[in-house]
Amino acid sequence: MKQGFTAPTGSKTVRPSGPTSDSIERKLWEKLIKLPLIPTPKGNYLPVLKHDKTLYVSGQLPLKDGSLGSFVGRHGREISVDGGQRAAQICTLNALALAKNELGSLEKIKRVIKVTGYVSGMPGFTDHSLVMNGASDFLVELFGEAGKHVRTVVGVTDLPFGSCIEIEYIFEIK
Amino acid sequence: MKQGFTAPTGSKTVRPSGPTSDSIERKLWEKLIKLPLIPTPKGNYLPVLKHDKTLYVSGQLPLKDGSLGSFVGRHGREISVDGGQRAAQICTLNALALAKNELGSLEKIKRVIKVTGYVSGMPGFTDHSLVMNGASDFLVELFGEAGKHVRTVVGVTDLPFGSCIEIEYIFEIK
Amino acid sequence: MKQGFTAPTGSKTVRPSGPTSDSIERKLWEKLIKLPLIPTPKGNYLPVLKHDKTLYVSGQLPLKDGSLGSFVGRHGREISVDGGQRAAQICTLNALALAKNELGSLEKIKRVIKVTGYVSGMPGFTDHSLVMNGASDFLVELFGEAGKHVRTVVGVTDLPFGSCIEIEYIFEIK
Repeated sequence: MKQGFTAPTGSKTVRPSGPTSDSIERKLWEKLIKLPLIPTPKGNYLPVLKHDKTLYVSGQLPLKDGSLGSFVGRHGREISVDGGQRAAQICTLNALALAKNELGSLEKIKRVIKVTGYVSGMPGFTDHSLVMNGASDFLVELFGEAGKHVRTVVGVTDLPFGSCIEIEYIFEIK
Repeated sequence: MKQGFTAPTGSKTVRPSGPTSDSIERKLWEKLIKLPLIPTPKGNYLPVLKHDKTLYVSGQLPLKDGSLGSFVGRHGREISVDGGQRAAQICTLNALALAKNELGSLEKIKRVIKVTGYVSGMPGFTDHSLVMNGASDFLVELFGEAGKHVRTVVGVTDLPFGSCIEIEYIFEIK
Repeated sequence: MKQGFTAPTGSKTVRPSGPTSDSIERKLWEKLIKLPLIPTPKGNYLPVLKHDKTLYVSGQLPLKDGSLGSFVGRHGREISVDGGQRAAQICTLNALALAKNELGSLEKIKRVIKVTGYVSGMPGFTDHSLVMNGASDFLVELFGEAGKHVRTVVGVTDLPFGSCIEIEYIFEIK
C-alpha cells in the first residue's frame, strides 16, 4: 500500500479535508497509508447512500486500482489469515475513500455502526473472525471509541470475481 | 411471466393504486408484467415491516404461484446467468407486490435504499454481480434515480428450498 | 439449558428487571429457561450498539459458557434440524442477555425488527428455514405480536469456529 505515496508537504494550505486538519486522515498519513481512488461499482448500483444520519456503503472488495491482484481465492488455499487481514484493511480503505468522496471529509463520520464481513474459505476453514479483525482493528485504530461497531462475519465459498473477502459498512454521520 | 396476463381496460375507474395513475405500475403494465400475488412467508415471520420511514422486506425467493419451478439449483450447473437474472427480477416483483400490499400503492416508495443478494453457485462460479444486475437494473428501470441503491452480493452454496437466489430489500417510504 | 437453574424465590424484592415484574423474563422463568451470562465478543467489536431507537446485536453463535459444545458442524452431517433449532434458540437467548445488559430490562424492547440467519449445511441441505424457525418461533412466544419480525435466512458452508448457525438481530427500543 505504501509504494508511490508522497507525503503532503508542510507548506500546503490547511483545508478542512486536508491531512493536517482532519484527524482521521492525519492518522492514515502517519501510517504512510494513502486513501485510494474511489472504486467503481461493478453494476447498476450506488457505492454509498445517505439516509438521514446513516451512510450505507455497498459491499467492498479489496480492489487496488480496480484490480483484486493477489486477493483472489479462498482462505485455507490461496489466502492466509495475514493476507485476509490485509485484504480486510483494503476493503475498509475503499469504504473510507467512498465516504470521504460523499461527505467531503472523514470528520463527518460520527461513528461506525456496523460491518458485515463475508470471508471465502475452503471447507473446514473457521478463522473468519481473525481475518475480519483486519477491518475491526483498523477502524478502532483510526476512529478510537467511535470506531467500535457491531459486526457479523460469516464464511462463504466464492465471492464476486473470486474475491477472498467482501465487507459492507454502515456509518453514523454528523 | 407474461402468460395469463390481462391488460387492464381503459374503462377502469382511475384509482390511486391503479395502473393509469401509478407510474411504477404503469411501467410494469407497459412491459406486460403483472405484479404477482403476494408470497406466503415460509415460517413464523413477517414478509414486510415498517419502521419509521423504512420498509424492510424479508429475503425473497423467485417464487411464482408458491413454487420455485425451474429456479432450483446452482449457478454454473442448473442455472445460467440469464436464468439467474430472471430469478432476480421475480424476487424483486415479489418484494414490490409485498410493498404494495403493505403501503397501498408503489407510489409510497420514496426510493430504494439497499438490496442484499445471495446467489447460489457451484465452486468457482464468480459471476454473482452479473446475476444480481437482474434486480438492480430492473429497479432502476422502474424507479429511475429513486431506484438506485447500495447493494451487497455474495455467493452461497445452497439456499432455502434449493432456490438459486435470495434477495432482501430496504425501501425508504414517503 | 435447564441444568443448574435455580428458580427465584418468592421473597425476592420486586425489581424492574426481576422475573416477577418483567413479562419477558417471567415467560423465560415459566419455561425454566435462564438468561445466560453475556457472551464475550470474539474480536475487536461491540456485542450491541444503540442507534436512536434501534438496538443492533452482533452476529450471535450458540455459545454456552463460552463454548459451542455440540453445536459445531454442518446440518446434514453432525447437526440435525432439531439440533439446529435448539442452537437458534441459544443464539437468541445470548442476544436477549446482551440486550438486557445494555438496556437494563427486556421490557425496554419495543419489538423485534429483523433477524438474519446463516445456517451451515452440507451440499444439498435446504431446510434452512426450518432450522431458523427455532429463533423465530421463540421470539414470537416470548414477545407475542411484538416478536414478529422480517427475516433473511441463507445457507453457508462454514461459520466462525465451526458453529452450525449464526444469527444477527435488530430490535426497536422504547
